Amino acid sequence: MLQHTDIINLMQSDMDRVSNRLSEAAKVRYADISPLLDEIIAAGGKRLRPLLLLLSARAFAYEETFDTLITAAAGVELLHTASLVHDDTVDRAALRRGKPTLNSQLDTGSVILIGDYLFAQSAMLAADTGIPRVVSIFASTLGDICDGQLMEMLEANDLNQSVEQYMLRIYGKTGSLFAGAAEMGGVISRAPDHTVAALQAFGGAVGTAFQIIDDVLDLTGESATLGKPAGNDLRQGTLTLPVIYFLRDAPVSARHMVSSVVAGSASEVEIGALIDDIRSSGAVDLAVRDAEIRVDAAIETLGDVVPDDDARQGLEEFAQLALKRSA
Amino acid sequence: MLQHTDIINLMQSDMDRVSNRLSEAAKVRYADISPLLDEIIAAGGKRLRPLLLLLSARAFAYEETFDTLITAAAGVELLHTASLVHDDTVDRAALRRGKPTLNSQLDTGSVILIGDYLFAQSAMLAADTGIPRVVSIFASTLGDICDGQLMEMLEANDLNQSVEQYMLRIYGKTGSLFAGAAEMGGVISRAPDHTVAALQAFGGAVGTAFQIIDDVLDLTGESATLGKPAGNDLRQGTLTLPVIYFLRDAPVSARHMVSSVVAGSASEVEIGALIDDIRSSGAVDLAVRDAEIRVDAAIETLGDVVPDDDARQGLEEFAQLALKRSA
Repeated sequence: MLQHTDIINLMQSDMDRVSNRLSEAAKVRYADISPLLDEIIAAGGKRLRPLLLLLSARAFAYEETFDTLITAAAGVELLHTASLVHDDTVDRAALRRGKPTLNSQLDTGSVILIGDYLFAQSAMLAADTGIPRVVSIFASTLGDICDGQLMEMLEANDLNQSVEQYMLRIYGKTGSLFAGAAEMGGVISRAPDHTVAALQAFGGAVGTAFQIIDDVLDLTGESATLGKPAGNDLRQGTLTLPVIYFLRDAPVSARHMVSSVVAGSASEVEIGALIDDIRSSGAVDLAVRDAEIRVDAAIETLGDVVPDDDARQGLEEFAQLALKRSA
Repeated sequence: MLQHTDIINLMQSDMDRVSNRLSEAAKVRYADISPLLDEIIAAGGKRLRPLLLLLSARAFAYEETFDTLITAAAGVELLHTASLVHDDTVDRAALRRGKPTLNSQLDTGSVILIGDYLFAQSAMLAADTGIPRVVSIFASTLGDICDGQLMEMLEANDLNQSVEQYMLRIYGKTGSLFAGAAEMGGVISRAPDHTVAALQAFGGAVGTAFQIIDDVLDLTGESATLGKPAGNDLRQGTLTLPVIYFLRDAPVSARHMVSSVVAGSASEVEIGALIDDIRSSGAVDLAVRDAEIRVDAAIETLGDVVPDDDARQGLEEFAQLALKRSA
């Protein structure tokens, strides 16, 4: 068996192929918009979703279906990018990954249309696979993402929301595309049906864990590392898992403070003090533990269905990567 | 052969099936949004795009592929609806078909997400056909629509744009979905390849003519009939065909007036006077003539490729409907 982290490193040239396909697909013939799109695509972080898609296919007909895998992987990443473009506009976010968002540089109308254009190009990539089931996964995942974002908006500022509501919401927003990416990888590489189902569940669990950790980092990270102000979600009215856990046992005064932060009526000093309170409560650890449990359970399920040791190790590395992520 | 208009009337029960499929697909489980979506779907005008899709299939395996046709027809209409939702937000339009737009009732973030959700549902319908080529047409049409809308935005306020630029833009914005609807109808009903190509060209020509007439009506219609202020496009900075023709021969003073209307610095009286000038110039007739020529040529091409008299007559009626439309 190869050394830990070797598998993902070995995938580098395949991932470069994904990046190239992505850049081609996101090209526009408008001089004003083209460099902005190039920048968004280039800033694309770790490309976790296409990586998961490729890793999910490794134990099966990977070589024979390689071109289709690359196309679908680029489609998945572009769908993610398109949803970020709209999401930043919905949230009126100024920064992402430490860089100005598109909506901080262009009027809302342009950003809506550019996001739509990216959705269209990602749908083209899905269609290019020529596999109806891949297209169905793609379309239903897009529906799940929108649904998750709608839930986030409709449940904003609601201090009485449950852990279940939170889990449902982040599954839609993040888990579903991880699940869909893993599922597509299995379908394209002709994995058996029960393996595809296991890969899909694995992707969903890791994506959910990834989002929990992302939400934790929003509270525990420093603004400089996050590339956006700490406590950003809370300021937006989005209650994340550590906040929901914190509220469960919080004194009435702390509850009032959360209310005034989400209502936008708290001062910076008050916001800082509240974040410190949440950090020093047990809520953050509880949330991290939830993420770990999900990932452990997800890894557990792989043993029976992914026969190849290296492929399975790659997926395990991936799951650890999701947990260990820094902003 | 049946009487004129009979064909389209005969399709009523099939179109009701489309409407039902559409309503199901656009359902959401959010009490705040659900009635707004129902209203948008119910206000859906003449449902020209699904009608064209069904008419394009009539001469071929219509009965055998009926369910798939209904699914695709609902998908096409929903794609159109989703693009209107975003387009009204981009244009900041207050009224559509005489009713308040979604963006005049909800914040921009909600409208972006609702539009995305409708895109997702329309993609689901396309995927539900299970025909890769239908999905490809769907995805590339969505790309064309976005491209047309981006062009409209980027070319706004440009008094030197050509008729060719205008034609390219409205093909993207409107012609492409008519073309795609006709093409899907042919593909699903297993029409021969050369017929599918002819149907696609027919749809594109009729859709383009439809948009030209729509643009003419924006200038010649009364606000009450239009359901929005007359000259709305011009106020938005969108130069339509009659305006482009008008500018070709206009005195310098009239050109200056167009500049100040698109810049938003003209008074209502000045806008009214400019619209009167355009109406009484030959520009409107030239534009209408362009639309008629396109439709006549489109009808001409059908003779050779659509063997069934009733089916061909239905498509001809459809083309006339596009030209004769009132707001």
